[in-house]
Amino acid sequence: MTTTLPTTKMANAIRALAMDAVQKANSGHPGMPMGMAEIAVALWAKHYRHNPANPQWINRDRFVLSNGHGSMLQYALLHLTGYDLSMDEIRNFRQMHSKTPGHPEFEITPGIETTTGPLGQGLTNAVGMALAEKLLAAEFNRANFPVVDHYTYTFVGDGCLMEGISHEACSLAGTLRLSKLIVLYDDNGISIDGHVEGWFKDDTPKRFEAYGWNVIRSVDGHNVEAVSAAIHQAKLSDKPTLICCKTVIGKGSPNLAGTDKVHGAALGDKEIAAVREALGWTSAPFEIPTEVYEAWDAKQQGQQVEGGWNTLFAAYSEAYPQQAAELTRRMKGELPGNFEQTLNDYIAACVDKKETIATRKASQNAIQALAPVLPEFLGGSADLTGSNLTNWKECVAVRADQPGNHINYGVREFGMSAIINGITLHGGYIPFGATFLTFSDYSRNALRMAALMKIRALFVFTHDSIGLGEDGPTHQSIEHVASLRLIPQLDNWRPCDTVESAVAWGYAVKRKDGPSTLIFSRQNLPYQERDAAQIANIQRGAYILKDAANAKATLIATGSEVALAMQSAEALAQEGIPVRVVSMPCADVFDRQDSAYKASVLQRGLPRVAIEAGVTAFWHKYVGLEGAVVGIDSFGESAPAGVLFKHFGFTVENVVAKVKLTLA
Amino acid sequence: MTTTLPTTKMANAIRALAMDAVQKANSGHPGMPMGMAEIAVALWAKHYRHNPANPQWINRDRFVLSNGHGSMLQYALLHLTGYDLSMDEIRNFRQMHSKTPGHPEFEITPGIETTTGPLGQGLTNAVGMALAEKLLAAEFNRANFPVVDHYTYTFVGDGCLMEGISHEACSLAGTLRLSKLIVLYDDNGISIDGHVEGWFKDDTPKRFEAYGWNVIRSVDGHNVEAVSAAIHQAKLSDKPTLICCKTVIGKGSPNLAGTDKVHGAALGDKEIAAVREALGWTSAPFEIPTEVYEAWDAKQQGQQVEGGWNTLFAAYSEAYPQQAAELTRRMKGELPGNFEQTLNDYIAACVDKKETIATRKASQNAIQALAPVLPEFLGGSADLTGSNLTNWKECVAVRADQPGNHINYGVREFGMSAIINGITLHGGYIPFGATFLTFSDYSRNALRMAALMKIRALFVFTHDSIGLGEDGPTHQSIEHVASLRLIPQLDNWRPCDTVESAVAWGYAVKRKDGPSTLIFSRQNLPYQERDAAQIANIQRGAYILKDAANAKATLIATGSEVALAMQSAEALAQEGIPVRVVSMPCADVFDRQDSAYKASVLQRGLPRVAIEAGVTAFWHKYVGLEGAVVGIDSFGESAPAGVLFKHFGFTVENVVAKVKLTLA
Repeated sequence: MTTTLPTTKMANAIRALAMDAVQKANSGHPGMPMGMAEIAVALWAKHYRHNPANPQWINRDRFVLSNGHGSMLQYALLHLTGYDLSMDEIRNFRQMHSKTPGHPEFEITPGIETTTGPLGQGLTNAVGMALAEKLLAAEFNRANFPVVDHYTYTFVGDGCLMEGISHEACSLAGTLRLSKLIVLYDDNGISIDGHVEGWFKDDTPKRFEAYGWNVIRSVDGHNVEAVSAAIHQAKLSDKPTLICCKTVIGKGSPNLAGTDKVHGAALGDKEIAAVREALGWTSAPFEIPTEVYEAWDAKQQGQQVEGGWNTLFAAYSEAYPQQAAELTRRMKGELPGNFEQTLNDYIAACVDKKETIATRKASQNAIQALAPVLPEFLGGSADLTGSNLTNWKECVAVRADQPGNHINYGVREFGMSAIINGITLHGGYIPFGATFLTFSDYSRNALRMAALMKIRALFVFTHDSIGLGEDGPTHQSIEHVASLRLIPQLDNWRPCDTVESAVAWGYAVKRKDGPSTLIFSRQNLPYQERDAAQIANIQRGAYILKDAANAKATLIATGSEVALAMQSAEALAQEGIPVRVVSMPCADVFDRQDSAYKASVLQRGLPRVAIEAGVTAFWHKYVGLEGAVVGIDSFGESAPAGVLFKHFGFTVENVVAKVKLTLA
Repeated sequence: MTTTLPTTKMANAIRALAMDAVQKANSGHPGMPMGMAEIAVALWAKHYRHNPANPQWINRDRFVLSNGHGSMLQYALLHLTGYDLSMDEIRNFRQMHSKTPGHPEFEITPGIETTTGPLGQGLTNAVGMALAEKLLAAEFNRANFPVVDHYTYTFVGDGCLMEGISHEACSLAGTLRLSKLIVLYDDNGISIDGHVEGWFKDDTPKRFEAYGWNVIRSVDGHNVEAVSAAIHQAKLSDKPTLICCKTVIGKGSPNLAGTDKVHGAALGDKEIAAVREALGWTSAPFEIPTEVYEAWDAKQQGQQVEGGWNTLFAAYSEAYPQQAAELTRRMKGELPGNFEQTLNDYIAACVDKKETIATRKASQNAIQALAPVLPEFLGGSADLTGSNLTNWKECVAVRADQPGNHINYGVREFGMSAIINGITLHGGYIPFGATFLTFSDYSRNALRMAALMKIRALFVFTHDSIGLGEDGPTHQSIEHVASLRLIPQLDNWRPCDTVESAVAWGYAVKRKDGPSTLIFSRQNLPYQERDAAQIANIQRGAYILKDAANAKATLIATGSEVALAMQSAEALAQEGIPVRVVSMPCADVFDRQDSAYKASVLQRGLPRVAIEAGVTAFWHKYVGLEGAVVGIDSFGESAPAGVLFKHFGFTVENVVAKVKLTLA
């Protein structure tokens, strides 16, 4: 990369690509790329350490476009600096199966570190990435060997900073002093509804100072040198930095700059011509002058910076061969060789012990068993550690000055979940965080984003139904298990005892290509007896827990209701009605089994009765119109758990009656 | 009320009731009530204007316990000041069907203004109440007649202030200068995981100053006079006020005060005895000395303050009879006499016009038609006004110095929704707010709270599926319609054209006892012909849009897929396969119909095929195992809408094929 070319031209190349691509698609957001073009030049041409030829280089700086609607900015940068993103892809902006979708998407486009668009979450992912870097550096770096040593940069707009999650993420980033996080704020004073002062008058610099951040105020966002100097300054701080860049949205557009009109619609041919004239940009659409390409090209420098690191890492590998191998393994997301054996030994121990404990406790035991072979475990809770039981004996709390492997996220469910996504995306850890199941509502879109990105993010939810008792309907999940199952690509486990809990943990950890929720009870659940084949089938999501010759019906249950199904089967047998009991800890995994297995578990022609302490609508997928569901279609109540289960009909009598009705 | 009794005793009465009730229930949160007892005395005995004999008095101060886990504090206050909440109810804390559930619940207990527990939302409800008061005062007060003139107080803890929603709500409250909102912050430095400084080091006063708040720092929360003086000072400010009260959690407990151990568990008999001794509290559990009752009793003063207001209102009624009647009507939540006619006229006009427009535009037209007779309409959008179309021609934007009836909520979906709940709870308005359907995820728990409280809060969600096109999977709702339908007591409307959109708005406005979502398309949807009976049946949630003699199957569709169902029916008829088409704009309302009606719409024995551009799991509730669903069980894609509908199988060919398979 040479910087002899005026940076104005480099910035204008971004403007041209953005406005032309949006115009061609007749859809998209030109205002942000045009307004942040100089900021992008300052960061990407003067600071950003990356290798376009190897977007997977583990010590690259991370870049997150939190204001993801400005995706053309990032596509322009990736194209111009030399990533595998051709001009044809830019021309195909927002078209089916292009590498240039409307918002940046992880694993669709090389160089995209996370999927953004839902505001505030990109920033929060970036907090997760910076946290992962800090912890990983503490764990792996040695004197003279800073093998983990990079910055995390993110662009944010007013929208990101209005979102509540920005508070959660930035408050925690300040507390944990994530000094290598540098946020560039596109302070253009415009959001979709117009000039923001009618609804957003925060003194944002003051707000971030209150979080313990280093704040660089009033930087001219159209002055490349000023922005670059601010980034230099940010790197010297021992706190995370917010650089407030004053910008004009749609800068370069003679008639629309500075207005909300340029935010989310094509400029139109006439205005585009006016922009070309105003900028002195004479190239045709999707044509970039050679000298501009040359100025932007980061391939050679990328090879150099990665090459330098490769040399460092080779020396590190000689001095610390074990650490080097371990860091490599962990950044690949591969499990250690002894994981499978450890898991199987632990499952066998559960079978031996036959404990009747709460599944949240069973979950903690599983964590405890796996943690010794999984140093990449990074646990946490949104201020419910003692309730969620996501800590383990040897875990160390993460603090500003104390690396560790358990994070007190504070009462920040959404922030926690999007930080977990960021940690996962960074690599090096398998993070999990926890709250009460009902508060999965607060974090729901982060779960969706994990599923969309197909990343191994783990979300533990305890206190999973009316079984939490006295806290009442605000805290009792009724619709949550069913509604989480509706999110594509998300696996949701609701185990019934110690063995299912162990298998669920094992499956979720092994599943590299998607997130899982692990849903546990507050109250004790009895151990269920199984043979080896049944234990093996747990990981198929549903299996026959108790069969019966000439079964007249199939009971399907999950979690805390499996024991009720077993007792009901007993009672029915005594009345001469043999039934099969299917335990279905994970409907999502069961749905992915081959049809022969599914048909063997849910036998055609047998009436089915599902039992789950939650809404019934979901279960008709399995029981149809003729079957029955023992569930709850109202909110819960505040009372002791035992009283509630009885009140809501989770009794042997009621299940037996429902089965008989179904048979009638 | 007399205050000759030392306020210490008044505070200790709260402590005793809280610790004894939690002990008896063996569950609950004694730490907060014990720590905030003096703050409660300062507010409730010295400032709070209310009438225990009439919790519905429209000009009462509002009080919200945002840290709702400390419910015993509020129950103690209600009991001691003279509300209809007996000592038996206190004894029955957290028991089935008591008036003292684990968290405060609206309409369960007299004097509870909103249901709290999910942290941050109570504070946000309070912002909504203060906003409603400010707007209503501007609308109805006249010189010398401040008929709407009260404060909104709320207690918050560290948890509420860590939650992201506190940022959204308080940033907006500052911008709109809600000067009659007074927040008392229980700054005890403890959350469930322990001392907060490990995960929460905000300079909270500075943060709130950044929001434009009046902040009163470092008040001794155990000094009644100091807290009372701060409240006096707060009332003089032209900004919302945060009073930071330094407190000790569990104050009074010799061995547990100041630790997280006292937060959420009974103290135990031994420690309770120690507290009694330390406080010099000699009364038995659930016994309050007469002089303490007398000191707390607010009945007489309540009668006086309401009496004074009644006199004022009587004079106002003479001077401004129309306004007085209107204010009375609106605070009762009754609709104006001409509402029904206006609605019906508008529906008739839609039938005449037969417009093919996007249902979001149809929604705006409905708002435009109803707004002239509904001055209580208070619209808004989370920074997507031009996309959601929740504004109307004559609406006026609410600003700090400008009352109005349309709120630019900023990019704050969760805040918006919980503010809407607060406005609804205050009374005087029918608020609605909007965002893209996908971002209902951000606000989901506020929708749940509205449903739990059974309040008329309206949530508009546009861009309801893959029909939004190029913005891609981050913005395309796949699972949202189905997952909203799982929330008990929430009605979810997804209309197919102008007429259904109008009926949906009418139904949602008329439904006093629960919230509704109104879900609209981005893209144009064709008008559907109906006779009068069909139009009348829309409000039953589902109806036969097109019948056929000897129908072989029933197609069920909603929203944008109704037209496809109609075209498919046509194609099937041409192939000699007559089918019935059912439009189901609101499954929730349909489920509440009598079984005869339901059976007449969904005829037994006819195979069913559901068509909806979303996840399929929900639909088996109606189509069973034998029917089919044309839906989407993956995430969407970034491409033009037409391309997507074809890609995902929303074509006549595919529907016809599915129907034939079902018949095979």
